[in-house]
Amino acid sequence: MNSQELVFTNNVGEAIDTIAARLNPSKTFVLVDVNTQSFVLPRLQALSQTVAGATLIVTRAGDMHKNLDSTQAIWKRLGDEGATRHSLLINVGGGVVTDMGAFAASTFKRGISFINVPTTLLGAVDASVGGKTGINFGSLKNQIGVFSQADTVIVSTLFFNTLTVEELRSGYAEMLKHGLLEDADTFNSLLGRHVEDIDPDTMLDLLQKSVLIKKDIVDTDPEEKNIRKALNLGHTAGHAFESLALERKSPIPHGYAVAYGLVTELVLSCMKLSFPSDVLHRFAAYVKEEYAGFHFSCDDYPRLLQLMHNDKKNLTAADINFTLLKNIGDVTIDCIVSEDDIKSALDITRDLLGI
Amino acid sequence: MNSQELVFTNNVGEAIDTIAARLNPSKTFVLVDVNTQSFVLPRLQALSQTVAGATLIVTRAGDMHKNLDSTQAIWKRLGDEGATRHSLLINVGGGVVTDMGAFAASTFKRGISFINVPTTLLGAVDASVGGKTGINFGSLKNQIGVFSQADTVIVSTLFFNTLTVEELRSGYAEMLKHGLLEDADTFNSLLGRHVEDIDPDTMLDLLQKSVLIKKDIVDTDPEEKNIRKALNLGHTAGHAFESLALERKSPIPHGYAVAYGLVTELVLSCMKLSFPSDVLHRFAAYVKEEYAGFHFSCDDYPRLLQLMHNDKKNLTAADINFTLLKNIGDVTIDCIVSEDDIKSALDITRDLLGI
Repeated sequence: MNSQELVFTNNVGEAIDTIAARLNPSKTFVLVDVNTQSFVLPRLQALSQTVAGATLIVTRAGDMHKNLDSTQAIWKRLGDEGATRHSLLINVGGGVVTDMGAFAASTFKRGISFINVPTTLLGAVDASVGGKTGINFGSLKNQIGVFSQADTVIVSTLFFNTLTVEELRSGYAEMLKHGLLEDADTFNSLLGRHVEDIDPDTMLDLLQKSVLIKKDIVDTDPEEKNIRKALNLGHTAGHAFESLALERKSPIPHGYAVAYGLVTELVLSCMKLSFPSDVLHRFAAYVKEEYAGFHFSCDDYPRLLQLMHNDKKNLTAADINFTLLKNIGDVTIDCIVSEDDIKSALDITRDLLGI
Repeated sequence: MNSQELVFTNNVGEAIDTIAARLNPSKTFVLVDVNTQSFVLPRLQALSQTVAGATLIVTRAGDMHKNLDSTQAIWKRLGDEGATRHSLLINVGGGVVTDMGAFAASTFKRGISFINVPTTLLGAVDASVGGKTGINFGSLKNQIGVFSQADTVIVSTLFFNTLTVEELRSGYAEMLKHGLLEDADTFNSLLGRHVEDIDPDTMLDLLQKSVLIKKDIVDTDPEEKNIRKALNLGHTAGHAFESLALERKSPIPHGYAVAYGLVTELVLSCMKLSFPSDVLHRFAAYVKEEYAGFHFSCDDYPRLLQLMHNDKKNLTAADINFTLLKNIGDVTIDCIVSEDDIKSALDITRDLLGI
């Protein structure tokens, strides 16, 4: 896998034009969803000649459209508009647009160049490094995809004023996860803020720090053989919550699912690895206050366990495999946990979050 | 891209069992089409414990089924049967099975291990090295795919007695192409034979030589930046013939399309690079005798040119880009040819082949 450049800047238009000049593509395409088409594209067209002159591909918004139908529509547009192997796709949007656009680009004619311009906090912090591309398939998240690096990812806070508080919180959950993986200072600093109150410059700093925590881990283990699994913290349970909500036709934001998943997995960390319970309680209180809204009961446990069994991270289909913490910044990967322990952790999660 | 092992053997069962023991997958799947299910699978189940114990996935036969519908069915079976990232897919069949199975494996949960066991001459000679995976999309061949290496490719002639003369000739066309790229001795030796008369041991030798010609080229230029384009000889015109036949609902074997494409591109080589016309005439006579059956007229030229414009190998959508020869073994890549010259070459092709 080639390496990708990571640029932190609020001069997004200039950055895009510089990269496009270097790549000199046969044709340039811009992928947006209907939201970024309305709220971001006009600003970006004014800031970048490349974007202004590109062929536009518009996809539907929302995780339920991060699927093969939408991917096919992108492939078809690329083909119909004469894209060659030497064309460029610029993905402008949240995780749906960058994950799916990156997958479409990586599989079109066996791979064309692409740039990701995440416009959401979640996209910036979660999808900027690591080269994970993909789409949902059946009821499973990111079931189909490849590892493939963007030429460049442009990280900025320029478009965050178009986001709802819910979207900001969704991204902030991944930053909290990086804080838990890094050290107590980083974690406590994040837990002491409300994301909607952070000014753009401070946010670009916090974001850069958070993205570089992830980048260090990914660079150490690009193929996810060992320590990169640290980044799965909160996601085994979180993806199950997210899939359950999707199956109920009342989807929750990815970061909300991760926040709940982090609570469940910190409970498991307390149970299995003596993670400090005061940190769990502080974190659960923060999640309860900031991320309220999702409900599940013990009737949902069998389906949640089934969804965790299907998780890509499991070594075999019979296992449920977690990344857990001994303490903040002290990670243990490949923790096999029994179904009974998971059920207990789900009980305690509901208790802590008052659901 | 990881490197893949290439094993030339007629002890196929033993080879599979050894590789599976090394990989120690969480679960093993075997992909066959309805033809290899009938003619190859029973023999392979008797020869290999791994194959006998694997979960079977059966796909429809024929290039028209090398598409997204079939790929989705494979993904769904893998998911339903509990495949994890650590599962193994063994693709047993011709190019349709190995190209599509490799693509399905490379994109399932962002990539699981796979072994290719080509059962046709074409699959063995063409799809064994290079890591090209893919499926057709719209009317375009291999429009969607990735570069991804098998763990191992097992090349044998064990199953060639299940092939028709047409299938043998189809594979032999790619061997003729390798002969043209290598040297006069190799080329003349191939042109002096009828593929259906070659005994299995001689064939394994010829096949190994042919595959290693390709491997040398691919190893020199894995990303197809320059000399690997040599392997496109015959394929710019060939793919257009193949797509045209598909659109007419009377598909022709890939190797037949390549044989006609080689004639057209040797004509262009004579026109543009003074390729020796006596070699062209000897080759065209061989193709006329062995590969008869495809017809096109000057009414088809506009569509053929359009299909060549869509070819993945073009640098821009306005160009038509060929790999041509100055002489046997003397390749020139990136030859841009005008539409008028291509039309003349198509006229001469029809003349030489009596169509």
